[in-house]
Amino acid sequence: MTGDVTTTTPDEGWVHPAWLPAEAWRPVGSRRVAVVGDGRDAPADTRSTQEHPVLATVRAELRAATQRWGGALVATGRGAADLDPGPDLVLVVGDGAGEAFTVDHGPALTVTADGPLGLLHGLHHVVRHGEAAFVGAPAAGLTGRHAPVQPVRMLDHWDNLEVHPVMGQVERGYAGGSIFWDDGRLRDDLARAASYARLLGSTGINAVAVNNVNVHRVEARLLTDGLDQVARLAEVFRPWGIRTYLSVSFAAPVVVGGLTTSDPLDEDVRRWWAEAADRVWARIPDFGGFVVKADSEGQPGPFAYGRDHADGANLLARAVAPHGGTVFWRAFVYDHQQDWRDRTTDRARAAHDHFTPLDGRFDDNVVVQVKQGPIDFQVREPVSPLLAAMPATRVAVELQVTQEYTGQQRHVCYLGPAWSQVLSFQPWGSPGPTVADVAAGHGPGARAAGVVAVSNVGDDPFWTGHPLAQANLYAFGRLAWDPALDPTDVLDEWIRLTFGDDPAVASTVHEVMDESWTTYEDYTAPLGIGFMVRPGGHYGPDVDGYEYTPWGTYHFADRDGIGVDRTRATGTGFTGQYPSPWRDVYESPETCPDELLLFFHHVPYTHRLRSGVTVVQHVYDTHLRGVERVEEMAQAWAELAGRVDPRVDARVRERLAEQRRSAVEWRDQLTTYFLRKSGVPDEHGRPLYP
Amino acid sequence: MTGDVTTTTPDEGWVHPAWLPAEAWRPVGSRRVAVVGDGRDAPADTRSTQEHPVLATVRAELRAATQRWGGALVATGRGAADLDPGPDLVLVVGDGAGEAFTVDHGPALTVTADGPLGLLHGLHHVVRHGEAAFVGAPAAGLTGRHAPVQPVRMLDHWDNLEVHPVMGQVERGYAGGSIFWDDGRLRDDLARAASYARLLGSTGINAVAVNNVNVHRVEARLLTDGLDQVARLAEVFRPWGIRTYLSVSFAAPVVVGGLTTSDPLDEDVRRWWAEAADRVWARIPDFGGFVVKADSEGQPGPFAYGRDHADGANLLARAVAPHGGTVFWRAFVYDHQQDWRDRTTDRARAAHDHFTPLDGRFDDNVVVQVKQGPIDFQVREPVSPLLAAMPATRVAVELQVTQEYTGQQRHVCYLGPAWSQVLSFQPWGSPGPTVADVAAGHGPGARAAGVVAVSNVGDDPFWTGHPLAQANLYAFGRLAWDPALDPTDVLDEWIRLTFGDDPAVASTVHEVMDESWTTYEDYTAPLGIGFMVRPGGHYGPDVDGYEYTPWGTYHFADRDGIGVDRTRATGTGFTGQYPSPWRDVYESPETCPDELLLFFHHVPYTHRLRSGVTVVQHVYDTHLRGVERVEEMAQAWAELAGRVDPRVDARVRERLAEQRRSAVEWRDQLTTYFLRKSGVPDEHGRPLYP
Repeated sequence: MTGDVTTTTPDEGWVHPAWLPAEAWRPVGSRRVAVVGDGRDAPADTRSTQEHPVLATVRAELRAATQRWGGALVATGRGAADLDPGPDLVLVVGDGAGEAFTVDHGPALTVTADGPLGLLHGLHHVVRHGEAAFVGAPAAGLTGRHAPVQPVRMLDHWDNLEVHPVMGQVERGYAGGSIFWDDGRLRDDLARAASYARLLGSTGINAVAVNNVNVHRVEARLLTDGLDQVARLAEVFRPWGIRTYLSVSFAAPVVVGGLTTSDPLDEDVRRWWAEAADRVWARIPDFGGFVVKADSEGQPGPFAYGRDHADGANLLARAVAPHGGTVFWRAFVYDHQQDWRDRTTDRARAAHDHFTPLDGRFDDNVVVQVKQGPIDFQVREPVSPLLAAMPATRVAVELQVTQEYTGQQRHVCYLGPAWSQVLSFQPWGSPGPTVADVAAGHGPGARAAGVVAVSNVGDDPFWTGHPLAQANLYAFGRLAWDPALDPTDVLDEWIRLTFGDDPAVASTVHEVMDESWTTYEDYTAPLGIGFMVRPGGHYGPDVDGYEYTPWGTYHFADRDGIGVDRTRATGTGFTGQYPSPWRDVYESPETCPDELLLFFHHVPYTHRLRSGVTVVQHVYDTHLRGVERVEEMAQAWAELAGRVDPRVDARVRERLAEQRRSAVEWRDQLTTYFLRKSGVPDEHGRPLYP
Repeated sequence: MTGDVTTTTPDEGWVHPAWLPAEAWRPVGSRRVAVVGDGRDAPADTRSTQEHPVLATVRAELRAATQRWGGALVATGRGAADLDPGPDLVLVVGDGAGEAFTVDHGPALTVTADGPLGLLHGLHHVVRHGEAAFVGAPAAGLTGRHAPVQPVRMLDHWDNLEVHPVMGQVERGYAGGSIFWDDGRLRDDLARAASYARLLGSTGINAVAVNNVNVHRVEARLLTDGLDQVARLAEVFRPWGIRTYLSVSFAAPVVVGGLTTSDPLDEDVRRWWAEAADRVWARIPDFGGFVVKADSEGQPGPFAYGRDHADGANLLARAVAPHGGTVFWRAFVYDHQQDWRDRTTDRARAAHDHFTPLDGRFDDNVVVQVKQGPIDFQVREPVSPLLAAMPATRVAVELQVTQEYTGQQRHVCYLGPAWSQVLSFQPWGSPGPTVADVAAGHGPGARAAGVVAVSNVGDDPFWTGHPLAQANLYAFGRLAWDPALDPTDVLDEWIRLTFGDDPAVASTVHEVMDESWTTYEDYTAPLGIGFMVRPGGHYGPDVDGYEYTPWGTYHFADRDGIGVDRTRATGTGFTGQYPSPWRDVYESPETCPDELLLFFHHVPYTHRLRSGVTVVQHVYDTHLRGVERVEEMAQAWAELAGRVDPRVDARVRERLAEQRRSAVEWRDQLTTYFLRKSGVPDEHGRPLYP
């Protein structure tokens, strides 16, 4: 059962406007807007070749919006105070590099930014508030100073230049081909990439890595022969305040450099990287840096030379340091050829075991990029203990916008609440700093790093396969800017921007999406156990699919119970990687949160959860309820017929049908599996397949 | 765990001589041989353009062998009686079309054949007997009349013209690419195909289907644009007495004919097929006919038009009848989108359910080709009841030489004994006709049809990946000619022809191979339950891999027991498809043979087999023993170092290492699975992984 989706395709060339349709600009575009310098001097305008590209972007957006909606761009070269009548919105810009801005609500709404980047973010801040920015009392959150919490807010594209025979063009992509690359090289037409840059810039994203972290042969050459292509992409992102990064192969000195080694301590290797970096920055002066997946799932790395990951990361860091570049070094290092018979090896431990001994040895311009959980983007995992274990290292948290394990953009699964839980998790208990604080440099000993996520975008007309999956892309940008935002508010913000002001539409879309993450959890792998997916593709259920594989992702179900004992007392000791209080909270099944019970403990099927039901009954209850919820979602969406773009409607309907089919399959396989294993019938006498 | 084999590759261009190395010809080649006409008139020789191509082959073989080994081809145009001294071997040939021959042991060994085909088979008969044909008392089986039991002895090649993205070039092939096709068309160099034809001819094969039964777009055109390529291949096979067949798409009228329908009752469709057949036979006058996989695993068929398989098969049969052609119509029709929840639908029933109502409706030149078992070439299955259920239809049995489910030519698995069991199975009990009798037209109401098997050959230097897998190809040919042969004798015959007369080598190879089929059964799926393989690739264990899929291949293991209830009393009723006595033998777990118990019955793990041990203990015992046997095989083979071709030795060693690794994996996954499910420890206290 592959769960293939028969995909409706709208007219060729049509692209869904996503969350910035022309409508969204009406409140700003129908008003008189002035852009002025911060000393009320004239900022450069588009006729000047010196103008900052982001300032040109702001001006172009305003020009287009006011022309469309009847407003006016009233000042481009003069102080606003001279105008009569005065403008409704005044954008005040300095020539600094900062991203922050301040909003004042006076006779005119005034956004004051240190520089063009802040101005762009400030403008979008106003756009997001819509009509409420201008009429009535100032809306909550509108005024005051706004600055990004995270210095780097990056999207990683797992895009290949060519179609990979197994992984497709976009690895773990569920929205068609790459919007950047086609047939081994950069597309000639980058209009779609430019629209994407605009979308990202509007959410506050400021960095993009443009190729897959699994760097194949063709992609490895982007660093050398292909540099012009990267430069063209950087030109596309620059006007939206976004820096370009490249995923590079640790073996690049061999693969594209012709050296015989990639040993990080080899002098030729060091020189090769330094020269490579020199060439990159000579071509792209505002280039961001490199993203590296090393010694991970078969990718080359320093282990081959008996070196460690600090040696490896610092090699690249020293090459890019003279240019102000940064190396994002992924901590996703584990043994992917594990023996399932060996219950002492625990993949969950791997990142912490590998990296904490290196704390303090990474250069200042290295960011260690740590996946949110210790395994791999499951619907429910504990927060990775590594995030709290490297006080002398810059640590970024990596999230996954693409729904690899959360329905692959065939299922509605709004991930904002999941990410919010991760970012607000307090590794040292409450009160105390959060994961977001650590990434932002506010934890104990922490230095600013940022947040990173894997993009879910492709050349699909709806950008993300499932039109509602756009919300995840949007929410990532917003939560990266401000992790304290309520993800439900962010959802409603996205809904309003995308679907307009019709309250009936907004409330229905909200109803479909709001609890979709926990609904997905309900009908898939229970209680934090993870996986149970079809090997390889990761779509659809296969309870034992990974049970006897080398991947380190097991549930150990037998006729008596299920779960992984990761305690210090009797298990793998993974709980000991957490600081207090979590090392103790997770250690005991009495205090471990229900939703993570099977991640930390092997328990009998009849073990009673803190919720009061047994493990096996919980499986029955949640799986039956999960399907019911999907049916409710589909019924709710059906009410929107005629009230949303029929192309969006058609696509969402077909995806909801597939989600229902798949959810039923999950429900039935899981309940049958647990029934066959445990022999325990449903307490409520509901029929299960034997 | 893909079990990839690192394959040693001998020098480029080297091809293993297989079972007809020059050595094998010495006994004949060192003697004086005469080829004469049956009225002692002169048969044509190679200088005549009229000579039958098979007669030319016989003469060329003898000329080469006698030149090499010092004998002489003493008569080509004169009566042998005139010669002085008289020849040692006299081959007497008429101009008939028969395949039989008679051997007399007088002053000269004399083979008398009705025609060239018989003469070729008679010559190989003598070659197989080696020196024993000429010295001492006549060996058992040497003299007397020999005729093939089966009129058609066919190999089906599942070769694609292009490399299929999922299936590779040879579907379910484990020996490299196709020896016929490359990059979408026939190879220019057909030397390898010619050597293959020679090998097949020496075993008695007389028919080959040259392309995959799953007919893709390019392959569909062989019937039209590509006919010249088929004709070239037919020229390669013709000198060895082998007719060429083509697999065709039932949708050919649409796919390559440009019609809008393939409806078998449509007049245009009938005309299209008739014209297509006319073109084929005009180009290849001795063409054999078509092989068709229709309405099977997604292939097109008559169901799409509300027609049945008699309508479909007769459509093609009437097109080829004027030319003496035959249609081999596969009975492998089942629902491959079954619901695993539905325990009443039974894939094992499908072929019988579909085809028996059509008995009597197939034209005389239709052969219904029935897989040996009701599922799909598992290591152990009961014989298909359909083979005994169509008295008014020509029914061929289909075997699988390629080791799809029996180790994929990484494992030694000599299948002769398995096929012998199938061919000698007596569907109506003993005494009574066998399956081979049915295929040969000796069953109740039966008409001659033949036996068919899927080839295991590719462009690998050893022909079959595993050098020892050649024995399966050889054994198929021999058992197709005479199903009553002892498969162990056939094995020894192959060993002697392939490895020569060194008795120590022969006995070691025998030891490695003789029980390899039951050894493979020991460490894989137990007691006839089948599958438990990795989905898709079918290599390596995955006990639940097919359990919740749409493929209809389930074991229904729960905490209490395992197996499929196919009884009439409480199950799917499949046992009722057998005539007496088997319908009753299989119905009761008390009389059902142990090795098929789980195919027919769902029993508790503690059910005691007729062997005296419980089901779960049987799993432990056989799986531990199976790995021990593989280790013994490897030890035995190691003794051959220096006594066999080092290239063959190296390849066999690497395969044995992989077989051991894989067998251990099977053992451990299976024993752990059964332990986890049943909770029953090993009776003998041996440690199992929990």
